[in-house]
Amino acid sequence: MKASIDFTVNRIETFSDGVFAIVVTLLVFDLHFPHINNPTNENVWAAIVATLPKLLSWINSFLVVCVIWMNHHRFMQQVKSFDFGLFWMNNLLLLFTSLLPFPTKLLGEYPGNNAATFFYGLCMFLPTVIFSLMGVYLIRHVQLLKGIPNHNIVVKVARLRGFYAPVIYLIGAGLSWVNNWLAIGVYTIISIYFIFPRTKLTTD
Amino acid sequence: MKASIDFTVNRIETFSDGVFAIVVTLLVFDLHFPHINNPTNENVWAAIVATLPKLLSWINSFLVVCVIWMNHHRFMQQVKSFDFGLFWMNNLLLLFTSLLPFPTKLLGEYPGNNAATFFYGLCMFLPTVIFSLMGVYLIRHVQLLKGIPNHNIVVKVARLRGFYAPVIYLIGAGLSWVNNWLAIGVYTIISIYFIFPRTKLTTD
Amino acid sequence: MKASIDFTVNRIETFSDGVFAIVVTLLVFDLHFPHINNPTNENVWAAIVATLPKLLSWINSFLVVCVIWMNHHRFMQQVKSFDFGLFWMNNLLLLFTSLLPFPTKLLGEYPGNNAATFFYGLCMFLPTVIFSLMGVYLIRHVQLLKGIPNHNIVVKVARLRGFYAPVIYLIGAGLSWVNNWLAIGVYTIISIYFIFPRTKLTTD
Amino acid sequence: MKASIDFTVNRIETFSDGVFAIVVTLLVFDLHFPHINNPTNENVWAAIVATLPKLLSWINSFLVVCVIWMNHHRFMQQVKSFDFGLFWMNNLLLLFTSLLPFPTKLLGEYPGNNAATFFYGLCMFLPTVIFSLMGVYLIRHVQLLKGIPNHNIVVKVARLRGFYAPVIYLIGAGLSWVNNWLAIGVYTIISIYFIFPRTKLTTD
Repeated sequence: MKASIDFTVNRIETFSDGVFAIVVTLLVFDLHFPHINNPTNENVWAAIVATLPKLLSWINSFLVVCVIWMNHHRFMQQVKSFDFGLFWMNNLLLLFTSLLPFPTKLLGEYPGNNAATFFYGLCMFLPTVIFSLMGVYLIRHVQLLKGIPNHNIVVKVARLRGFYAPVIYLIGAGLSWVNNWLAIGVYTIISIYFIFPRTKLTTD
Repeated sequence: MKASIDFTVNRIETFSDGVFAIVVTLLVFDLHFPHINNPTNENVWAAIVATLPKLLSWINSFLVVCVIWMNHHRFMQQVKSFDFGLFWMNNLLLLFTSLLPFPTKLLGEYPGNNAATFFYGLCMFLPTVIFSLMGVYLIRHVQLLKGIPNHNIVVKVARLRGFYAPVIYLIGAGLSWVNNWLAIGVYTIISIYFIFPRTKLTTD
Repeated sequence: MKASIDFTVNRIETFSDGVFAIVVTLLVFDLHFPHINNPTNENVWAAIVATLPKLLSWINSFLVVCVIWMNHHRFMQQVKSFDFGLFWMNNLLLLFTSLLPFPTKLLGEYPGNNAATFFYGLCMFLPTVIFSLMGVYLIRHVQLLKGIPNHNIVVKVARLRGFYAPVIYLIGAGLSWVNNWLAIGVYTIISIYFIFPRTKLTTD
Repeated sequence: MKASIDFTVNRIETFSDGVFAIVVTLLVFDLHFPHINNPTNENVWAAIVATLPKLLSWINSFLVVCVIWMNHHRFMQQVKSFDFGLFWMNNLLLLFTSLLPFPTKLLGEYPGNNAATFFYGLCMFLPTVIFSLMGVYLIRHVQLLKGIPNHNIVVKVARLRGFYAPVIYLIGAGLSWVNNWLAIGVYTIISIYFIFPRTKLTTD
């Protein structure tokens, strides 16, 4: 019984890892290069330089997926078993993560466009909301957790994790209608901020 | 001998998981975005809104592949070893699952088209038929099963699993020639219905 | 020391499985659908029917990659450890396997073309040659094998495996300059023939 | 505690393996084939022959990713655990590795172009630099290493590994402005050189 449950968590983990690895790798395949009619050194070099906004949009999305992977990894270390609710929330997380190449491509193609910037922020907001909900769900179904959780700390930390990231992404997305580059600045700050380790969910 | 057999099941599982993870992730790469000659905020936003049928077609296929993965996972938990028949049925299941991005793209591109809707239903029907056949095969080759199966229950449940989904998909596909949106409604109901857990194949 | 060697074989296996799973899944992404200016039911249905040669080419390549995976799986069950020679032969096998979507796309696009049919056969020939060479290599480096191999049987069987498939593919490729459909018939027969189990490399 | 750390290394390894397998496989999907208006045998065959520069660029990148995978594999065999620094350096390595299809496509499309050749060398240079930095990092954080490292040998070997490859790639990239084919010759020599085993990082 125990072995069977562990196995389930392992397969969900493998499946999720597969999705994350594919998303992160395939982001680069939207770095399309324009066809150059007269491919002199200057023209090809100019075309390479012109892909710079796409490259930056790609790097940002790459780092965001790495952060999602890192948090998912940390999340899974707390989880002993999955019920159907958590399984489908995890699938929703994968769904929204696998959507990310779409807004990334859009932002890279229309780098100064407010609608593209807003849509990018909105799509970044969705997985963070699901992540928050997964944290809340876990606290309400403590039987899915490994070990005996210290209730006070779990709730407190979960609240922090649960509301910061989505709220800042929403603010960033809203700001994109005011000033495009301000919004992109906010997105970049979130990416850099989340790269560094934060308070752990565990108390050990 | 025993270890070698377990290993085989593990590798088939890993291979299948890889295929499912790739299919589910790559669905998004057919969300192509039209080139906008005059990328004002209004035009880009209108183009984003215009991708809505593609997004819905994508979400539905994503959930269907997750359901296939879930059922495959449950199926594999019953299986002790693979013979050549089951191995090639599993490959056919992967073949039809990996076809799904093709009708999804088609339905997303021609959302009001009866032929596209019919083809989508037909392609959804194929993996469910294979799944049913795999269930029937397993019952006729009980030596491939883990533990001692309760014959009566296995047969009864397998029948339920084996005929419901394909028949409903066929009905949905047929309805697409009568009314396009009726068929899409049937497909959506199947997706939602299969998300929720059903009677288990096991009796433990 | 022993654990480290086993681990290496496992990672090469995982890496190879990943490549096979990706190749098999991505074959479908070359099933491009023509843009239809007037998407009536008749036109869309006609376009679906017109993709039939592509679908058949896709199914054949899918089955071939499954056969390669099956043989690779069986091959790996004999192997205890990898040296640099075998490691790079395995990489060459992956290289030629990952090339297969390219001739598949070509054959699907120009189904009655002799050059496309010849190139398809040539690309199918390459992984079978590498496989044969891997078999020969293993027999000349018996220290890489699990257990104590019965030299006579191993050599005899390896010869059979080592020359049949590539020779038939070469004949098929050559025939494509005489008659296109004759060559495709030969390819199909090889696919069907190799689906069924053959003499095992092991003697247990 | 011990188990949890091992597990982390395993998941980072699985995630990295996934990225490498996807990059290596997807390289072939940029082997686009021109649409032929009059697909006679001669025209199709001429188009196949015309893809030869793309095929060579693809083979070279395939072998480079295999070399990166091999070195990563060897690197991971030394590592006992990951801290945040090493985790993000590994992510940067994956980022630059997953970029490789982009310059490969460019070099294959503009085979005689100096800018394309320079950019290819630059993109090959980036993962080798990160690899060197990861080696240096590991030597400065010996607590992450398995076993007791012999300090003198580790430093000496790491220096060799750490500066050779990036410097040669930089020279190759620089030469591309002098003579395009000279640079490609240098890249090819590096690929072939690194295929063969070198001094090991370990002393056992």
